[in-house]
Amino acid sequence: MGLQGRIDTALSTTITRAQGRAQKTPSKLASALNYAVTPGGARIRPTILMSVAMACGDDKPRLTDAAATALELIHCASLVHDDLPCFDDADMRRGKPSVHRAFSQPLAVLTGDSLIILAFETLARTVSSSPERMAELISILARRSGMPDGICAGQGWESESEVDLAAYHQSKTGSLFIAATQMGAVAAGQEAEPWEELGARIGEAFQVADDLRDALYSEAQLGKPAGQDDLNGRPNAVSLLGVDGAMTRLKDILAGAIASIPSCAGEAQLAEMVRMYAEKVTPAIPAHHRVS
Amino acid sequence: MGLQGRIDTALSTTITRAQGRAQKTPSKLASALNYAVTPGGARIRPTILMSVAMACGDDKPRLTDAAATALELIHCASLVHDDLPCFDDADMRRGKPSVHRAFSQPLAVLTGDSLIILAFETLARTVSSSPERMAELISILARRSGMPDGICAGQGWESESEVDLAAYHQSKTGSLFIAATQMGAVAAGQEAEPWEELGARIGEAFQVADDLRDALYSEAQLGKPAGQDDLNGRPNAVSLLGVDGAMTRLKDILAGAIASIPSCAGEAQLAEMVRMYAEKVTPAIPAHHRVS
Repeated sequence: MGLQGRIDTALSTTITRAQGRAQKTPSKLASALNYAVTPGGARIRPTILMSVAMACGDDKPRLTDAAATALELIHCASLVHDDLPCFDDADMRRGKPSVHRAFSQPLAVLTGDSLIILAFETLARTVSSSPERMAELISILARRSGMPDGICAGQGWESESEVDLAAYHQSKTGSLFIAATQMGAVAAGQEAEPWEELGARIGEAFQVADDLRDALYSEAQLGKPAGQDDLNGRPNAVSLLGVDGAMTRLKDILAGAIASIPSCAGEAQLAEMVRMYAEKVTPAIPAHHRVS
Repeated sequence: MGLQGRIDTALSTTITRAQGRAQKTPSKLASALNYAVTPGGARIRPTILMSVAMACGDDKPRLTDAAATALELIHCASLVHDDLPCFDDADMRRGKPSVHRAFSQPLAVLTGDSLIILAFETLARTVSSSPERMAELISILARRSGMPDGICAGQGWESESEVDLAAYHQSKTGSLFIAATQMGAVAAGQEAEPWEELGARIGEAFQVADDLRDALYSEAQLGKPAGQDDLNGRPNAVSLLGVDGAMTRLKDILAGAIASIPSCAGEAQLAEMVRMYAEKVTPAIPAHHRVS
């Protein structure tokens, strides 16, 4: 089973448990939980997490599975809440109606809440594998999700008139990538701290690549509304550096990411993973944007 | 320091930590976190939790404090989300504007999310006290908050056309009281299971008392909109049994609660706590409702 299969199996087992027995649980909310996490996008964060864990030996695969699942659940929860009318008011997500459009706003709020709780519950279930690693995984995930440093803080900055841009980007986009590399290392018994830079750089690359896609592609290609940054007046690598400048920046960040990989048994494969990831996220520049 | 002081100190330390350093975190969201948990209501759930822990010896007070804090954070988060326009659309809560009225809807969603995450983070921080108890506390809290059995499930039932009423009431109102008694026991090193009935009965009593207050009192006395059950067509002990019938039912449930207290060192004080709680929640019947 490849990484993708391993992630999807772990996620689907967890969601099935949370859905409970038919008739004994509210069926629409049970369906919405599954709707919110399938079909997956690229599952980038849990893929990075598992790749790091495997590079570090992956000696407790149940812990790695739980960590990857918990991280993806938090990511999916944040998408469901971010799509709500009071935030991005997005009708579409991953090429299908967003949760509040397919179900309702109350069910979208509850779906997000339930997925957040499920993430921590999933980690707590691994106590018999290693209580210390489990507690650290919960702490890292909470720190990178909540206040004052996590994705909640990142969203919170969008309600401020004066924004600390570095803190905003780090918490909004970077934090779950930092969680990915650190949780992968911790699940495999390694220290979290040396893995922060790799996560931060991958997160930065992801943000620049997203800005490029947002500027270059249409709504049909993205599966979600395009040009959202321009609409919402958010700072953007393309508006700051131009398309070519942003492409150069993306390559520099990825080179830095590879250089930052801590010494470990699977260092070479991990560098290869970052290169493949780079190819995947780097958008092809449409002809009318090319400088001749 | 009395129980109330102990709870408020633990909560305020936790909120201050989550607010982070000024300028480095979004200030409105940081303020909203504190606004959502202060001033407290009766702090009934953490009071029950601490009373049970003390009846069982309270040998790890840091764990008890963390458990009480986490439970109250989840309760406050659920109030913030339940008040949102897509649910109860409540303008007032505890005698002041609800979080989305005082701040905004986006900040209310993020406040609830952040408080949920903070609850689990608070428990994870106690790993050095006892990793096993900590993991069980997280599991109980998650089970009683999320899907398929917790307060999210309870709210989810309100979107269904066919409702399992027993499951609805148990999850919507009962679950956090069950969490209170079970987490109190587990924090003090006891088994969770024998404490479920006490929590369930206190939760039932709370529901009947709330129905009575909702039917008898005005909005000014409640500090929130009155007559909400009638408005929303929810089943209600007063509409089923009448005021006198509901009062009799309340007394019976509380007698059952006291009878269910498991054998423990502080059994007598705990029974006294339930009696005091009963006096506190039982509404005085206004003159025009009395049968002469």
